[in-house]
Amino acid sequence: MDDVVIRPLENVELRDPVLVEGLPGVGNVGKLAADYLKDKVEAKPLATIYSKFLPPQVYVSEEGIVRLVSNDLFYRKARGRGERDLLILGGDYQGISPEGQYELTHRVLELAARFGCRELYTLAGFAQGHVVETPRVLGAATSTAKVEALRKFGVVFSRTDPGGGLIGASGLFLGLGRLFGMEGVCLMGETSGYFVDFRSAEAVLKVLTRALAIEIDFTDLEAKGKEIDRIAQKIHETEQRMTEPSSSASGREDLGYIG
Amino acid sequence: MDDVVIRPLENVELRDPVLVEGLPGVGNVGKLAADYLKDKVEAKPLATIYSKFLPPQVYVSEEGIVRLVSNDLFYRKARGRGERDLLILGGDYQGISPEGQYELTHRVLELAARFGCRELYTLAGFAQGHVVETPRVLGAATSTAKVEALRKFGVVFSRTDPGGGLIGASGLFLGLGRLFGMEGVCLMGETSGYFVDFRSAEAVLKVLTRALAIEIDFTDLEAKGKEIDRIAQKIHETEQRMTEPSSSASGREDLGYIG
Amino acid sequence: MDDVVIRPLENVELRDPVLVEGLPGVGNVGKLAADYLKDKVEAKPLATIYSKFLPPQVYVSEEGIVRLVSNDLFYRKARGRGERDLLILGGDYQGISPEGQYELTHRVLELAARFGCRELYTLAGFAQGHVVETPRVLGAATSTAKVEALRKFGVVFSRTDPGGGLIGASGLFLGLGRLFGMEGVCLMGETSGYFVDFRSAEAVLKVLTRALAIEIDFTDLEAKGKEIDRIAQKIHETEQRMTEPSSSASGREDLGYIG
Amino acid sequence: MDDVVIRPLENVELRDPVLVEGLPGVGNVGKLAADYLKDKVEAKPLATIYSKFLPPQVYVSEEGIVRLVSNDLFYRKARGRGERDLLILGGDYQGISPEGQYELTHRVLELAARFGCRELYTLAGFAQGHVVETPRVLGAATSTAKVEALRKFGVVFSRTDPGGGLIGASGLFLGLGRLFGMEGVCLMGETSGYFVDFRSAEAVLKVLTRALAIEIDFTDLEAKGKEIDRIAQKIHETEQRMTEPSSSASGREDLGYIG
Repeated sequence: MDDVVIRPLENVELRDPVLVEGLPGVGNVGKLAADYLKDKVEAKPLATIYSKFLPPQVYVSEEGIVRLVSNDLFYRKARGRGERDLLILGGDYQGISPEGQYELTHRVLELAARFGCRELYTLAGFAQGHVVETPRVLGAATSTAKVEALRKFGVVFSRTDPGGGLIGASGLFLGLGRLFGMEGVCLMGETSGYFVDFRSAEAVLKVLTRALAIEIDFTDLEAKGKEIDRIAQKIHETEQRMTEPSSSASGREDLGYIG
Repeated sequence: MDDVVIRPLENVELRDPVLVEGLPGVGNVGKLAADYLKDKVEAKPLATIYSKFLPPQVYVSEEGIVRLVSNDLFYRKARGRGERDLLILGGDYQGISPEGQYELTHRVLELAARFGCRELYTLAGFAQGHVVETPRVLGAATSTAKVEALRKFGVVFSRTDPGGGLIGASGLFLGLGRLFGMEGVCLMGETSGYFVDFRSAEAVLKVLTRALAIEIDFTDLEAKGKEIDRIAQKIHETEQRMTEPSSSASGREDLGYIG
Repeated sequence: MDDVVIRPLENVELRDPVLVEGLPGVGNVGKLAADYLKDKVEAKPLATIYSKFLPPQVYVSEEGIVRLVSNDLFYRKARGRGERDLLILGGDYQGISPEGQYELTHRVLELAARFGCRELYTLAGFAQGHVVETPRVLGAATSTAKVEALRKFGVVFSRTDPGGGLIGASGLFLGLGRLFGMEGVCLMGETSGYFVDFRSAEAVLKVLTRALAIEIDFTDLEAKGKEIDRIAQKIHETEQRMTEPSSSASGREDLGYIG
Repeated sequence: MDDVVIRPLENVELRDPVLVEGLPGVGNVGKLAADYLKDKVEAKPLATIYSKFLPPQVYVSEEGIVRLVSNDLFYRKARGRGERDLLILGGDYQGISPEGQYELTHRVLELAARFGCRELYTLAGFAQGHVVETPRVLGAATSTAKVEALRKFGVVFSRTDPGGGLIGASGLFLGLGRLFGMEGVCLMGETSGYFVDFRSAEAVLKVLTRALAIEIDFTDLEAKGKEIDRIAQKIHETEQRMTEPSSSASGREDLGYIG
């Protein structure tokens, strides 16, 4: 069996497309953003990517139909003014070994290059380890020009974050992309890292759509984000109750008559 | 050394055979069912499959003779009315790494395809985590037609089970089988998952034989199942004694005079 | 780099040689036996085997000279009546992954086959988990003829041991050897498994030399065995003191005046 | 994707160059030394080595620019009398699996051999598990001639250290180097192993530059070493306070009036 099996689903020609990558990861931010974008721009299936570097697993639909885990490439032709053709990569998993990460990323880049792709955006979450009220979008890029360009859309290029570099697909797509002569940016939405974070995905996607000059409706994503807001708020309140001295003190007072 | 070494044992031609897979797994249900079927229909050895994706291990018989661990393919020509040629896959282990799972499954499917196989049944256990009085047979399939067909034999296609999909050979055979143009069904016998479950294997095999229009004698399997029944009953009783308040209460009363 | 790199050290022709394998393992029995045999029959280096399936490690001699870890093949031409040409395999490690085990074993068997080898003996330890006064030599073989032949030299072919089969090089050499048309026997010296066991190696080697009609001097091995005997005796005594009620009782009496 | 991707950065011819390897490891001694040497001799980039045996990771600069992790080969042409052309290998990681270690090392040696390299120095730390006042430089080599030659520069070839051999790139470069007909020496600076050790790197580099007849300025390295000295001193003092009986005794006296 080939290490990576690419099943083309449609024969299409694209003009200078931009690749958007969003695979599962921290807070699932990248995947949420890429999937939402794909749906809202009505991108069409282009290729399914199976691989022995993904888990030996099938998903079963509510109707009982199996589907082998995969990475999935979609495309969407430019429509409006200033828009560009898009390639969108989503999927069930990142490669499950370092070698698998390299192989899968390389194969997708190879495929994108064949469609004429010279630029890419990778979407990810950046775990802060605490609830983030208003998630910033941190960035990393392949060139100073890209850094300057994205700064205009509010992306934060921090001297300290991410300190240890990026591990996984979103970084690797940029790193290996350079070997294909591609320029790129990684957009990282701040997130607690404790749950699936729609608001962080929204923040990332707002930057991305401005950079790509695409307009999409954010209503559904905002609704899901508000749901998470409520959960986050509750966690936040609980945390405060457990750490703030005044509340513990009053807690002790309540129990004082027992002692 | 080739990753997978297939040793053909007989030169035979088959007509539109159905592949039945039953490798070790949850409750060993799949393997028990496939092995029993193989014995009862007097299937003959077709090929032995060795691989570096299996453990570096030999088994030693009571006579002291070693045998390298393997996967084993058997065949059985159609005899009765409505019967079809069969390919039956059993073995000592599933592939011991994700890559190994993919490679072994792919190679067996390739081999089956060369015999003209276009349809397959994979047999497995579905762990419920508690003793199951009357094991249902859950299903997952490659097409709606297959779902409808199997529902008639009592297979349950649940909206929720298996929630996280199927991991391992039984799912992968269906998933990769689609790349070979094969249709298939996975039959999962409910089982506690705590012991080797003959009754679950029996339930699975009863569905399978009806679907394949084969008649086999279930006496031996039922006998082994009753043995398990007795064990299960004892475990069940023990569990009840430990969790039901009334019984614990009476337990305490019995011991009351000691205190 | 090739997975396995074989460096031939001498150009020699052998006549129907027997391969003896003794790599590190339980109680180091196999390696001790093969190394001792190699020294006493003055076997000569035939080939060094390097591999990325061995650890990335060099050993450093007392003189400060490095040596890459390897498996090492030696040969010894028949001298006395009834003797046969020998191939002896020793080494620093077994392959460090299942795949590595298969690859290394396969490559050595390939090489041995090229020298005309059709028969092999693999040497190993069999862990009993307790001190063994007089280690038996358990056996497993590729044919009934071999079982019968070895029984005459005192080898025990037990219905129950080894129950779960043999894992590692000694089993794999037999299992894969059959694919090369080789017949073989695994000789397993009983050992506690807690230390390097020269006495178990001696027991194994006494059977092997009788089977191969070779005479060697066992003095050095016996000396090392007696050293281990002393250690084993001490461990045994300590164990008895800790488990036998009478001795603990007397122990308490001795200390009684303290309390 | 190729297992190892070598990107040549310059086309240069070298005459009998010496390879100096210094990858991350114990106390980071080897990497510190090789990086410092590279900077001080103003070595130029020769090739970047990417590999799926390195982590799937990019580093992000303070300016927000990504860089895929790599091993990096530099060169420096001989200038002074008695100097030789140099190849210097640094990098972010050693190969992250045994197989990766072998592959990366083999590929770099292959490349070095193509430049005419027949001799190498590998730089490493030797963990002593305690603070080392004046780090010695321990050695291991491929030949007695090399041992004798390096002894003159103060390298210690100990009968006992390193007892278990060398694991990782520094040993493997020597071990595999022999298969390329290269002679070599591993220089191991003693270090506690608890922190990044500039003083150990300095000790190693002083030996190396004498052996290579190169003069470099050690001021910067000494400065960093003194910083570590201060930290080491503090740790040492703390350790003494915690282990020396007199100080604990006085400690107890100080607290005596509390009890």
